[in-house]
Amino acid sequence: MQNNTILLAQLNPIVADIEYNYNKALECIKQAQKKDIKLVAFPEMFLLGYPPMDIIERYPLIVEENIKYLEKLSLECKDISVLIGFCEFNKEKCGRKYFNSVAYINNTKIEKIMRKSLLPTYSEFSESRYFQAADFISKDRIINFNSLHAGIIICEEGWNDFDFFKKPLYKIDPVETLIKEQKPDFLINLSASPTRTKKEQLLNNMLSHCAKKYSLPILYVNQSGSTDCITFSGTSRAYDKNGNLIARAKSFEEDFFEVNIFNNTQNRIEPLPKGLEKTLNSQKEFSLDYEPDLERTYLTIISAIKDYFKKNGFKRAVLGLSGGLDSSACAVLLTDALGKENVTGVSMPSKITSSQSKNDAKELAHNLGINFFEIPIKDMADASSNTFNKVFDEIQNTWGEFRYKAPLTFDNIQARSRAMILWGISNEFSSTLPIATSDKSELYMGYATINGDMSGGFAPICDVTKTKLFALARWMNENRKTKNAIPEAILTKPPGAELAINPKTGKPLLAEEALMPYEFLDEVIWRLENLQQRADEMLKEVFLYEKKHLVTPEQKKLWLQKFAQRVQFAQFKWSIMPPGPIVDSRSINRAEYIQPITSKLKF
Amino acid sequence: MQNNTILLAQLNPIVADIEYNYNKALECIKQAQKKDIKLVAFPEMFLLGYPPMDIIERYPLIVEENIKYLEKLSLECKDISVLIGFCEFNKEKCGRKYFNSVAYINNTKIEKIMRKSLLPTYSEFSESRYFQAADFISKDRIINFNSLHAGIIICEEGWNDFDFFKKPLYKIDPVETLIKEQKPDFLINLSASPTRTKKEQLLNNMLSHCAKKYSLPILYVNQSGSTDCITFSGTSRAYDKNGNLIARAKSFEEDFFEVNIFNNTQNRIEPLPKGLEKTLNSQKEFSLDYEPDLERTYLTIISAIKDYFKKNGFKRAVLGLSGGLDSSACAVLLTDALGKENVTGVSMPSKITSSQSKNDAKELAHNLGINFFEIPIKDMADASSNTFNKVFDEIQNTWGEFRYKAPLTFDNIQARSRAMILWGISNEFSSTLPIATSDKSELYMGYATINGDMSGGFAPICDVTKTKLFALARWMNENRKTKNAIPEAILTKPPGAELAINPKTGKPLLAEEALMPYEFLDEVIWRLENLQQRADEMLKEVFLYEKKHLVTPEQKKLWLQKFAQRVQFAQFKWSIMPPGPIVDSRSINRAEYIQPITSKLKF
Repeated sequence: MQNNTILLAQLNPIVADIEYNYNKALECIKQAQKKDIKLVAFPEMFLLGYPPMDIIERYPLIVEENIKYLEKLSLECKDISVLIGFCEFNKEKCGRKYFNSVAYINNTKIEKIMRKSLLPTYSEFSESRYFQAADFISKDRIINFNSLHAGIIICEEGWNDFDFFKKPLYKIDPVETLIKEQKPDFLINLSASPTRTKKEQLLNNMLSHCAKKYSLPILYVNQSGSTDCITFSGTSRAYDKNGNLIARAKSFEEDFFEVNIFNNTQNRIEPLPKGLEKTLNSQKEFSLDYEPDLERTYLTIISAIKDYFKKNGFKRAVLGLSGGLDSSACAVLLTDALGKENVTGVSMPSKITSSQSKNDAKELAHNLGINFFEIPIKDMADASSNTFNKVFDEIQNTWGEFRYKAPLTFDNIQARSRAMILWGISNEFSSTLPIATSDKSELYMGYATINGDMSGGFAPICDVTKTKLFALARWMNENRKTKNAIPEAILTKPPGAELAINPKTGKPLLAEEALMPYEFLDEVIWRLENLQQRADEMLKEVFLYEKKHLVTPEQKKLWLQKFAQRVQFAQFKWSIMPPGPIVDSRSINRAEYIQPITSKLKF
Repeated sequence: MQNNTILLAQLNPIVADIEYNYNKALECIKQAQKKDIKLVAFPEMFLLGYPPMDIIERYPLIVEENIKYLEKLSLECKDISVLIGFCEFNKEKCGRKYFNSVAYINNTKIEKIMRKSLLPTYSEFSESRYFQAADFISKDRIINFNSLHAGIIICEEGWNDFDFFKKPLYKIDPVETLIKEQKPDFLINLSASPTRTKKEQLLNNMLSHCAKKYSLPILYVNQSGSTDCITFSGTSRAYDKNGNLIARAKSFEEDFFEVNIFNNTQNRIEPLPKGLEKTLNSQKEFSLDYEPDLERTYLTIISAIKDYFKKNGFKRAVLGLSGGLDSSACAVLLTDALGKENVTGVSMPSKITSSQSKNDAKELAHNLGINFFEIPIKDMADASSNTFNKVFDEIQNTWGEFRYKAPLTFDNIQARSRAMILWGISNEFSSTLPIATSDKSELYMGYATINGDMSGGFAPICDVTKTKLFALARWMNENRKTKNAIPEAILTKPPGAELAINPKTGKPLLAEEALMPYEFLDEVIWRLENLQQRADEMLKEVFLYEKKHLVTPEQKKLWLQKFAQRVQFAQFKWSIMPPGPIVDSRSINRAEYIQPITSKLKF
């Protein structure tokens, strides 16, 4: 009796840590051998770890090692077949240094090498920098599995269907070629495909479409885990020849995922992150109903924090707790990723900080059970102010009339004194990383202080807009084991940095007074990122905010102008932001957006 | 009598400032019309500005505008032919959004569109992200010039000669195809090609080789100016059919460059930056003889500072003057780029700062004639220390045994207090940018303080190693109008941050005590970047430093291990460095090196 189970090895590699990845693969193969499984499929580039980035150009030893370990691994594959991604030297006369390849190991021999033909080079992908695009040779893509033929596809090669995509990126469709020329019985796609808003929907629809179109079962294996800004959800799966989902692995964790393509009853279908099924219907306009994407957002950030700390040898996070939304949401995420004993919140009040804010911060820390310290920054801020004031008059005498009237300088002294304390703690205590708490809406506006709140070793919410962050905070309050960790007061008070006083109100300046309503701002961001709309087009659209509030055309125009001006100047700040997880379908994250500074944006 | 002069429009565009670029082009065309010049050739992508970066994906209005202005420009081209680079929408059924194209305008009509076929995607280039690689159609590449046929090549298309390059990147050589199929009388290459160490040598040899190989004159037009980290030297030129240089434009500035391909006596050959001719012979080993590259290095950095400030609307630079080499060299470069009235040096002594250092800083500022202030940081550093100390014991009680013994925390308070003052000045006074003074050797070692000396709006010397910086400083002392601006004491004392005391000597800790000899370190960097050598290979090589000093194999191994360890941790710091000019043939500059943080380097 043949064992028709295929093991999809949904694992979490470390880039360039070949030995670590090898051991993970070996353990998995041994388990499969014990169970008499005949075929194990690993994700794309698994031995080297994906994404490779520029280190493979500069440290070719990494690539040599992954070849050495591939050969070593093949010897362990007695009576079993293995498909595993690795980085191959390109020994041809011309072209780039490497191929993005898959080895087919059969009973201790490397029988075939398959070289990726379509190389994604957009957003977070930069494969054309390192890899030569191979000609697609369909006969190399067929392997035997019991009495069947499996056709092998490497990630992007499966994303160019001429019917499914309005404007495919490449002129050839390897899936079509493979099926036409070799008539395989089923397909396996080996991938390293990052998670994004709406990506699950796209992936599911595309794979289902292809299975149905060619009347062929499709298996898809993806890695889990995070590398810097990029997170992989796993969620490996299989579709039958009618395009129906028949198996799905866990999301955002490793999973030795066994799929039986002849006996569906043996397959498991793990649930997607809560609500994500709903996004399987396309969401084509801006909406404040973030609910279907909140668990995925949460899991993406948790995975990113966890792996950034673990893979880089950090243990503890330290962050400022202002009693506001951004730092509170970060504290909850860090607690869930690292454990409460490894998170330290520091309240660093200044003379502007209200006692309400101080209490909210304290209550949050108490609810989470994290370490908490209060360090007033008055002495530091005073010493800085005094030092500055002595010299500013002198500078003004030299330079003349260039001095600003706005109290921006003192506002920033407070934010920078706080960052100085957090970095000081990081310097004094081992394995401790300060956290940058800026959110996406404020980063777009440049509403963050250099060497202040935007400084840190990692930025957990840099790709979450403010309105989505409010929704995420409420979601966490409802869905975490400990309910309502974030005090209600934090969720109801309007955001404000408490760095300056609004002369009109005599109270701390609110962010929406300094910027524009977040609901409006977040829709501008959404339209820019998802539709590439410009100001004159947006002027004609009715915004969600306008359905609830009276906004004159003049006001709307002013807000759009403010947006354009602030984005122009904010680009420098984006370029020096620490890494943080990519979450949205588009972002300004360094890992996916090549940021110009010297340029004139047209909006 | 026909006018056989061709105008190579070596100009400096601003990315996405289409109107600015259009006006520059128009002015140039009008001058040519007055002189009855029949053909003007602009650099690649001139109307949009190069490099385009990700803004063209998100702000398609930029591309629409460049099309509009191209049409407008064509109407101005009465009785003249113009070749000009622009960004074209790709209206084909599949592929990327844009083409990197050249328009051939003849007597007010756009007669031909030429689409780039080879798209550089490495180092500072990322063209495959935006552009579709076009099929190379040779008949589209021919234009009439008087009674001759000119063949047009777009930048990278000229860089794939199968004889010249050992391993060409692409499978086709457009130059060969064009010459074979269309038999042009001469070639024009429209480029946007950044300057690097040894690039002039490569460019000259390659163009000369091709002219000789095909027995055809070649004209080459390049842009000047800088965008963020990338600098273009200009240096447009022409070779006769024997491969001899017959004309060369100015370097590092704009030049309306007229070339007469039939009457060589009318052509000018501008000198290269001093000494650069010498590098026309390849330099294949590490050397401290930087002299042939120093004027180019100087001009590259000057261009980068000048354009970063001008194009982004900044006027004044403010930097800390420690009396050390890094800040002194930066001060000279800023003075020459921005004018002495726009540079402010601030001496910010702490208790460790020697009076010698203070005097050296003062003397330098005096020699340069820049503004100078002294702001002791004692009060700020004390207030921070006091604040910290109160809380560190409390944290230690909570966390246990994780506290470091090294005085790193206090060292960094000093560096961060200084950066706080510089950013404070930038906040308080308009159009003023703080400068990050870290050099390349120290960045490699992570020997720079986050939110301290590595913080700023621009980092002029981030791609200059310490030994080269010493040479550059001496070169500036000799070659600037005002000689010896940098006091000799600064050039002779060993580098040190003056942040900590060496317990062994009781004196401020020297950088080479904390790291390793710079001469050794810089050779490690050179071997890594240029030869991709690894530790075991370097162990076998005899370093320049070893020819002068006794170094045991154990010591060498220890230094190499230290290098590897520090680089592993320094990668985070590189990722948050402000922009600064790319100077060397390889760098760790954000604009050319995709920086992984989570990864395990193998060295």
